Amino acid sequence: MSIHDRAKSFCSSLLENIVNPKSKNGPIVTLTYAQSLDGRISGHHGKQLALSCEESFVMTHRLRTLHDGILVGIGTLLNDNPRLTARLLGPGELESTISQPRPIILDSQLRFPLSSKVLLQSKTNGYKSPLIFTSYKHDSDKRKLLEQEGAVIVPIESNKNGQLSIPHVLSILCLPPFSISRLMVEGGAKIIKSFLKINMVDLLIVTIAPVFVGANGILAIDENSTNSQIEEEVNDDLPKLVNVKYEQFGRDIVLASYVLS
Amino acid sequence: MSIHDRAKSFCSSLLENIVNPKSKNGPIVTLTYAQSLDGRISGHHGKQLALSCEESFVMTHRLRTLHDGILVGIGTLLNDNPRLTARLLGPGELESTISQPRPIILDSQLRFPLSSKVLLQSKTNGYKSPLIFTSYKHDSDKRKLLEQEGAVIVPIESNKNGQLSIPHVLSILCLPPFSISRLMVEGGAKIIKSFLKINMVDLLIVTIAPVFVGANGILAIDENSTNSQIEEEVNDDLPKLVNVKYEQFGRDIVLASYVLS
Repeated sequence: MSIHDRAKSFCSSLLENIVNPKSKNGPIVTLTYAQSLDGRISGHHGKQLALSCEESFVMTHRLRTLHDGILVGIGTLLNDNPRLTARLLGPGELESTISQPRPIILDSQLRFPLSSKVLLQSKTNGYKSPLIFTSYKHDSDKRKLLEQEGAVIVPIESNKNGQLSIPHVLSILCLPPFSISRLMVEGGAKIIKSFLKINMVDLLIVTIAPVFVGANGILAIDENSTNSQIEEEVNDDLPKLVNVKYEQFGRDIVLASYVLS
Repeated sequence: MSIHDRAKSFCSSLLENIVNPKSKNGPIVTLTYAQSLDGRISGHHGKQLALSCEESFVMTHRLRTLHDGILVGIGTLLNDNPRLTARLLGPGELESTISQPRPIILDSQLRFPLSSKVLLQSKTNGYKSPLIFTSYKHDSDKRKLLEQEGAVIVPIESNKNGQLSIPHVLSILCLPPFSISRLMVEGGAKIIKSFLKINMVDLLIVTIAPVFVGANGILAIDENSTNSQIEEEVNDDLPKLVNVKYEQFGRDIVLASYVLS
């Protein structure tokens, strides 16, 4: 089986099994990230690392084609300037003709830069405008500039620490005009931990690269969740994983699991 | 194939491929530990956690039967009071008739307790006396007590921080009367990191349990290496893994890899 067919079969079968999403008024949530063997998702001071191998990138991009939106925190956008599009497609598939996911950014202080790839590419046919959730306390001049360039800004309530509520974000995403029914959440560390802690993850997919990053790297799950973009709620415990599957892609092992309610 | 046969085939084939051990004057070194998905090997304040499932325990105990000695730091001995014997054997194998590995402890201050299982069990036929490496500055009364109970104490030079040299330990282990030709290193965190940092690991076997421990757990690879029992040398970099293999045991995935020189 080709790598594309294997990635398609792996990702599709995982999503097909989700009947009732965790969020009653929101989309199915797939949380996905790549980590080193020692649990790091990026390098010193958040430096982007090429952890995944080519084959697991194919899997991740296949997963993107199966979602309507990809959510990241503003920290990840500023650090990595990602495109958040589905690429590395199979034979006969074109980036411009498949349905590309909408980039979604949690950005309470509207730090989103005008030069970001997700904004620039949205002027090209086939790519969706970025959707930015921010607090009511944002800079309205910055908002105007971003909207002129095509960004969609949605202000919502924030708590006393300026953090946005994930359940509120999810409830808006699944309604028109966005109508996101499958949301892929890609990071960074604060977003990963927050989604797990409020137990809003339906499907967890972690690519483990057989490398050590060492103590200076940023952990996927760390205690450092001050200054989080989003409100942390409920319990301190991380959820239990059920029905775990493994699939090797190149040198990496990919863990896929559902998350106990 | 039974779980015992699969564990045997997995472990044996990994060891058979090692021709020239890293340590020129020492044994083949297998570093092995179990970690959570988020890279933790124990809980809050080092609390022992049942991370591995039954099937991967069978693999780890099979691996023990293939080694002459099992080395841990005194922290692990004090925290977990492990037996460091090969159990969970296959049909027809008896704990008392197979060749059990010798327990080896790095303990610069001779904190080793008289009540430890590795000492108590050594009075039973078939179990070897624990071998304790310590510094010349140890308490000689404590030494006498331990020796009366059957422990073998080997004082060696320590550096100015009281840390023992791993290369020195390895060079003693492979000589008579110990003649350890295959050493299994099981932890804890300081020992794991030290062996990796000095690049003295021939075979790395990591059991990854699909659970989250969270920020309070002890990381396998952390910056916290002060008060280490052993001298840290050479480079800050962790070594590269080569020829990586994965094998699922129960709900866990086991990564096995050689380590680049």
